[in-house]
Amino acid sequence: MQVNGKAYRTIWQEKNEAEAVRIIDQRKLPFTFSVERIQTATEMARAIQEMWVRGAPLIGAAAAFGMYLACLETAKEQDTDRLERLTATLLDSRPTAVNLRWAVERQLTVLQQTDDWLKRCELLGEEARKIADEDVEICRQIGVNGLPLIEAIHVKQPERPINILTHCNAGWLATVDWGTATSPIYHAHEKGIPVHVWVDETRPRNQGAKLTAWELQQHGVPHTIIADNAGGHLMQHGQVDMCIVGTDRTTYTGDVCNKIGTYLKALAAWDNKVPFYVALPSPTIDWRIRDGVGEIPIEERAADELTEADGIDVADGQLRRVHIMNTDSPAANFAFDVTPAKYVTGLITEKGVCSASEEGIQSLFPQGDSQ
Amino acid sequence: MQVNGKAYRTIWQEKNEAEAVRIIDQRKLPFTFSVERIQTATEMARAIQEMWVRGAPLIGAAAAFGMYLACLETAKEQDTDRLERLTATLLDSRPTAVNLRWAVERQLTVLQQTDDWLKRCELLGEEARKIADEDVEICRQIGVNGLPLIEAIHVKQPERPINILTHCNAGWLATVDWGTATSPIYHAHEKGIPVHVWVDETRPRNQGAKLTAWELQQHGVPHTIIADNAGGHLMQHGQVDMCIVGTDRTTYTGDVCNKIGTYLKALAAWDNKVPFYVALPSPTIDWRIRDGVGEIPIEERAADELTEADGIDVADGQLRRVHIMNTDSPAANFAFDVTPAKYVTGLITEKGVCSASEEGIQSLFPQGDSQ
Repeated sequence: MQVNGKAYRTIWQEKNEAEAVRIIDQRKLPFTFSVERIQTATEMARAIQEMWVRGAPLIGAAAAFGMYLACLETAKEQDTDRLERLTATLLDSRPTAVNLRWAVERQLTVLQQTDDWLKRCELLGEEARKIADEDVEICRQIGVNGLPLIEAIHVKQPERPINILTHCNAGWLATVDWGTATSPIYHAHEKGIPVHVWVDETRPRNQGAKLTAWELQQHGVPHTIIADNAGGHLMQHGQVDMCIVGTDRTTYTGDVCNKIGTYLKALAAWDNKVPFYVALPSPTIDWRIRDGVGEIPIEERAADELTEADGIDVADGQLRRVHIMNTDSPAANFAFDVTPAKYVTGLITEKGVCSASEEGIQSLFPQGDSQ
Repeated sequence: MQVNGKAYRTIWQEKNEAEAVRIIDQRKLPFTFSVERIQTATEMARAIQEMWVRGAPLIGAAAAFGMYLACLETAKEQDTDRLERLTATLLDSRPTAVNLRWAVERQLTVLQQTDDWLKRCELLGEEARKIADEDVEICRQIGVNGLPLIEAIHVKQPERPINILTHCNAGWLATVDWGTATSPIYHAHEKGIPVHVWVDETRPRNQGAKLTAWELQQHGVPHTIIADNAGGHLMQHGQVDMCIVGTDRTTYTGDVCNKIGTYLKALAAWDNKVPFYVALPSPTIDWRIRDGVGEIPIEERAADELTEADGIDVADGQLRRVHIMNTDSPAANFAFDVTPAKYVTGLITEKGVCSASEEGIQSLFPQGDSQ
């Protein structure tokens, strides 16, 4: 999508720069837009580990490019041991990221196609670009499939913008392009349908206020940041026409595990008869889990994500980190919650829109045949 | 309650200091505990306006003491015009605060009892102390009436602490002592019942993380700060035994207007069968309003309360203010929301506990005869 008036992806290769990969250092957003040139697999592993890149699809693409860089580094000496060590480093960079393991294993399969190291590098490069392109296409399809839901509201109220609430960042920054929850929004915006996005700030890491707000602003989509607490009030007063959020994991029964606080917005949407949609690429469907609340373990992260905040000092413009709470109080930081399927109006996938139920998911993915 | 091991109220007079009033500058909490000596009505109006003191009951008491100081200042010259101007200044300090107007009008009635200015000052001082004492007694009674609700849970699960979730600061800092939502908690704690409080940080102004956490910590009540987003997840997993929150305004039908986000917690409590109580002094009951969502106007406050945050710089320990969001995005800051009565398990008042309904409220306050 657009940044400073220029189209970007979150990961790409520049022309005449075959031996490097470009990424955006997302840790610095929204305060600094910094493009980094990644030249080694170790650098890529660090970028994944330290969350320069984040979001399941983007992590997958980054790992795939990391494998390409690992091959380039080891091809000259044909150093299989070192290639294995670099592969392990990439796999260890975010141990729980399913997409990461999936992408690395896909590259290992490619590696086995030939013993010619130069050919190997060429094939791994092609495969990495293919993985990135596939993600773009999945996200684009999510947008194409979600667009009619927005158009249907537009037909009913052509005179005023469609207010869409979103939580966290399921935007293009979390993918290679388009995003998941944002893709229908970007598609509507491109088509000239007036949309306005209520952006939950998304405590404790503020991905809404920092990343979603930044990417919408850069692309020119009207939006307003609100406290996570505000969505219920807005829905009570008819100020939200629909919600679209992402998901980190979806049970085959339609329960949705997403950023902490998603469940509260779903309850408010339910109470106020506001449609609540979840956008997802089908690989996030977990075909083994029936009961989201009972079976999905919820990560508890470091308390300082909650107790401290980064920001620009209003006095001197410097980036600083401050402790914003009573210093002597303990704090707990739960990363995700589970929204039961009954509160989800529908799932927007790359294959179409379905109900958040076993039947609905089966109708689009008959043999559990998501990517 | 206790601060640094010493009992405090939020407003008081020191012995041998008849011509001044002491308050805590709550703007500086939790980072600095600063007691201020207020010597003029103008200073008190400023303390109210700039929120050195906040919370409806405390604002009322502060205004009553402000009238006392106004009388002291004008008694020597018997300057009725100046007294009227100071009265207006106090009334203007927080124009929408019902308790402020109520307290000033109560003092104006006292003023009319005599033309003797020294006597007037004496009577206004007595009345201010009486208003403060009455508030302490109301809050104490809320605690006495709420305590059995906690004891009943304790009987069922004597082996583990009772987890109580609260939102914002309806603590002693918002009143003269005890608080409203916190009063049953302090009473349980004093009685040796093991309680643990989940403290919602309460964005955007962070009164939970700053004030409630501070006062619980100072008084020695176990607690943990959580993101506002986390309460639903905790309730889904049986980690919340009850919720107790305050209210800024309660309709005679039991709808509750409280800090933004209260409604979302009530929905989660309802969905997980967690009792959701609202503690209130009966003057917050609005006998004219039937439909909270439809009739109560919701204040929209300055966006910088949301986009900026105060905190202690982790690098050098200095207090700083930082902008924590995408700088070029608009933000909206709604201060309150309304929780419909059907999601409220009960109201804890100074006269007893009742259902959140017209019948329930009538049973305790038959002729709308709250204070």
